[in-house]
Amino acid sequence: MRLSIDVLLDYFVDDSAEVLLQIEAAAMADQRLEQQDLRVYCDNPLRAMSGEEGIGQRTWARASGSFQAEYRAVVAIDRAPVDLSSLPPTAMAELPAEAIPYLLPSRYCESDHFEGFVQSEFAGLEGGALASAIGDWVRENLTYASGSSSGVTTAMMTFADRRGVCRDYAHLLVTLARAGGIPARCVSAYAPGVDPPDFHAVAELWLAGGWHLIDATGMAKCGEIARVAVGRDATDIAFMTVFGTATMYRQVVKVTRLDDAVRNGGVG
Amino acid sequence: MRLSIDVLLDYFVDDSAEVLLQIEAAAMADQRLEQQDLRVYCDNPLRAMSGEEGIGQRTWARASGSFQAEYRAVVAIDRAPVDLSSLPPTAMAELPAEAIPYLLPSRYCESDHFEGFVQSEFAGLEGGALASAIGDWVRENLTYASGSSSGVTTAMMTFADRRGVCRDYAHLLVTLARAGGIPARCVSAYAPGVDPPDFHAVAELWLAGGWHLIDATGMAKCGEIARVAVGRDATDIAFMTVFGTATMYRQVVKVTRLDDAVRNGGVG
Amino acid sequence: MRLSIDVLLDYFVDDSAEVLLQIEAAAMADQRLEQQDLRVYCDNPLRAMSGEEGIGQRTWARASGSFQAEYRAVVAIDRAPVDLSSLPPTAMAELPAEAIPYLLPSRYCESDHFEGFVQSEFAGLEGGALASAIGDWVRENLTYASGSSSGVTTAMMTFADRRGVCRDYAHLLVTLARAGGIPARCVSAYAPGVDPPDFHAVAELWLAGGWHLIDATGMAKCGEIARVAVGRDATDIAFMTVFGTATMYRQVVKVTRLDDAVRNGGVG
Amino acid sequence: MRLSIDVLLDYFVDDSAEVLLQIEAAAMADQRLEQQDLRVYCDNPLRAMSGEEGIGQRTWARASGSFQAEYRAVVAIDRAPVDLSSLPPTAMAELPAEAIPYLLPSRYCESDHFEGFVQSEFAGLEGGALASAIGDWVRENLTYASGSSSGVTTAMMTFADRRGVCRDYAHLLVTLARAGGIPARCVSAYAPGVDPPDFHAVAELWLAGGWHLIDATGMAKCGEIARVAVGRDATDIAFMTVFGTATMYRQVVKVTRLDDAVRNGGVG
Repeated sequence: MRLSIDVLLDYFVDDSAEVLLQIEAAAMADQRLEQQDLRVYCDNPLRAMSGEEGIGQRTWARASGSFQAEYRAVVAIDRAPVDLSSLPPTAMAELPAEAIPYLLPSRYCESDHFEGFVQSEFAGLEGGALASAIGDWVRENLTYASGSSSGVTTAMMTFADRRGVCRDYAHLLVTLARAGGIPARCVSAYAPGVDPPDFHAVAELWLAGGWHLIDATGMAKCGEIARVAVGRDATDIAFMTVFGTATMYRQVVKVTRLDDAVRNGGVG
Repeated sequence: MRLSIDVLLDYFVDDSAEVLLQIEAAAMADQRLEQQDLRVYCDNPLRAMSGEEGIGQRTWARASGSFQAEYRAVVAIDRAPVDLSSLPPTAMAELPAEAIPYLLPSRYCESDHFEGFVQSEFAGLEGGALASAIGDWVRENLTYASGSSSGVTTAMMTFADRRGVCRDYAHLLVTLARAGGIPARCVSAYAPGVDPPDFHAVAELWLAGGWHLIDATGMAKCGEIARVAVGRDATDIAFMTVFGTATMYRQVVKVTRLDDAVRNGGVG
Repeated sequence: MRLSIDVLLDYFVDDSAEVLLQIEAAAMADQRLEQQDLRVYCDNPLRAMSGEEGIGQRTWARASGSFQAEYRAVVAIDRAPVDLSSLPPTAMAELPAEAIPYLLPSRYCESDHFEGFVQSEFAGLEGGALASAIGDWVRENLTYASGSSSGVTTAMMTFADRRGVCRDYAHLLVTLARAGGIPARCVSAYAPGVDPPDFHAVAELWLAGGWHLIDATGMAKCGEIARVAVGRDATDIAFMTVFGTATMYRQVVKVTRLDDAVRNGGVG
Repeated sequence: MRLSIDVLLDYFVDDSAEVLLQIEAAAMADQRLEQQDLRVYCDNPLRAMSGEEGIGQRTWARASGSFQAEYRAVVAIDRAPVDLSSLPPTAMAELPAEAIPYLLPSRYCESDHFEGFVQSEFAGLEGGALASAIGDWVRENLTYASGSSSGVTTAMMTFADRRGVCRDYAHLLVTLARAGGIPARCVSAYAPGVDPPDFHAVAELWLAGGWHLIDATGMAKCGEIARVAVGRDATDIAFMTVFGTATMYRQVVKVTRLDDAVRNGGVG
């Protein structure tokens, strides 16, 4: 399936600040970039470099005063659905070096506090069956509520609050998976059907020798997610990190299934 | 029933420090002091004053180097068991002024984060039925584990960890009760059967016009608890607060049912 | 001097919620209420009770949907300026029972973490000289910045951030004072000259047998502050605590020096 | 110069647990392994893999009951001292991709809270001059105090406490550097002169195109540090991570300058 992505960022930066953007869909085996265009309105030349794990791109800009960025892309996604619950467990000692950091607690994912809960709530489960049960638990026990969390909300707070937005769902899923011995990372992404339309955050779990996407909010199907960046938690995958102070004027994220558009168009 | 209490504190204080002790059983309508003797080995005269809510006593001492305190008491407790679950709810607006602070979040009891959990887990319950269900939930979902927590552990961490000591049980029970609209405070106490023997911490909930003791650990029966101090959380009810640095050498807390002792003695 | 106070709260409450208001100026020896009128637009009768330490009033209301409150008062303040720096220290053991809770750390005031800093930064100072130096330090080292903090910001964060609003100034001052052995509490208040106009928060320190107001922001003179409530930190002195969820539509706080008004009026 | 390293870990693991060891000195251009021997007494075969950034090694073991590891090595260090203060600044946009994660806040290094402090305290400084001033500030403002911190202590707490151990010094230095726009990572290391003898933690800052070691405690000279692992903070560089519960019986870390030993031997 193909996604059309259309993003507008319109900010105001006090004084001047370095801005690290991470909004381009990543070119990967299961998601191919058909078109892509990033425009940033600022004084200095942009500089792009690889994101975490070599996935996606980070772009530096220097902003002073008005700061605008536009991004348009068409991404072809070719990713077969996987029945997570059937995937076998991987012994920790068999994990590749690259997966180890995703077993450890991080700023927003205090997995070292959740071993007791995971052992009692999901007793007897491991591997894909555990991952799948954790995904279901998060979906069933959290309520999606815009504005119910903030940039300081951690998985432990979300676990108590029982409400949050996509970022919080991803953090809690990642935290519980790590506490259960499954490497898990956070993924920023574009997906259709996200409501309200925005940058999306999902989780990716290491199972049976590969990373597998899960959206604990249930809003995005695994086959319709275009990854932007991966990392330990929200810190790494932020779409914009400002080394200074900025105010948002307007932010628009529009993601459409192109085939729908065509199909709809064909009706006329 | 009557309790015999025997406490020894043996500490070393670097340089010199002010020490606030709170280890005397409180004289109250349902617990009468038959004998009581506090000895503190330090240079300066002691000064005692009322504890929080006018309950119990705080005693100041100044320590430098070796610091020892001994406390011996006999307390007669006359407190009928209450079936919490049958107590009716009190509307917030009917609460007395003194109960209000115990509705609010405090340092170790982040009750403002638990409204969502309490509403979904205990849907439809209120008053004593809610209090009783919360007590059961804490008892069933936590595992008692010495050394599993520390002086920085909050109710939110315990809720994730699913393990703790009496202080953590009390904090979580108090937190969930407040989140459910029931004023709740922490109580330091002496009780037989605490294992390992130590100062004990329990909770007290405001229901049907009065405060009612609950020990979420299940170690102490309500009719065998001698309160020492009450407060918002562990900060207020600490048995010893050192304004400086101290090292523990030895600490012994021995609490015995006197009637048992007599009965056993009579056997001989 | 006399203050005219005029407050409007206009909120929307989802479903229905208990609301605890604390917006009335307190009647105290050094601030006399000449006129006072509180109107709350809600279905049920209001119930008022004493605030913390018997100071001021808390009022319960139940709100569903639109919730509005208006408060108008004239307060005559008769409080002579005190040169804090000349006040002698009070030994901890000489403090009255009521001052003890204000020596202890609380949710937003982690004073147990600041003993080292206070000892090195203010070496040799005690009593009023210490209080005064702490007030100066906070004023000189923080920058007032609207929107730079939130409801989760603690004194420790403010100490790092070096910026905040009145609440953060008060929290940090209170925290450093407690770490230096001086009982300190937070005070919500009305004062002219607060910019932007809003509820104000200041600190009150126990020195030489009484509580003394300090505004670390420097915006309000000690003789022009009308206390509303006192407490351990922002939790206790909140002007509105909603047990549920509410959205602010409009909030207006207008505080005027009446004598100015008259004098200005007389000019015409 | 050459270091002799001799480590003994003796632990007891409840039930059985996966253990991730990270105690081997890393083979790098400026530190060559002359001899190295790791022995782990456990049932299953060990598995080793690269550490963070491809530096050093992580080794998995499964432990049940008694768990012991011995490590002996001789490391030749060839690292010229660098005058940090003379190194020029690097514009953020010129940083290599691998340095970016070390600009961001992490679990123990809340650098996003320190921008205000760094700007005011170190106004006008950048690059090596800033790095050097930050190192001096940490050394001068912290007091080394064994037992003054724990596994939950973050840089923000250390900044308030003004005391800590090597881990806390490293965290605070790293945090201030990141807040000042200099990528900074934590490094676990062996060094002679560490007192009490133990695993050591230092910082590494990205300046003038390379990573430069700094020991904020002042205990280890830059030319006598053998790196074990690098990472964002203590989470990544832990010498032992237990996925379960373990108790320490004995832990010995002995690091000796070999040339000293020879010279001393030659005296006889």
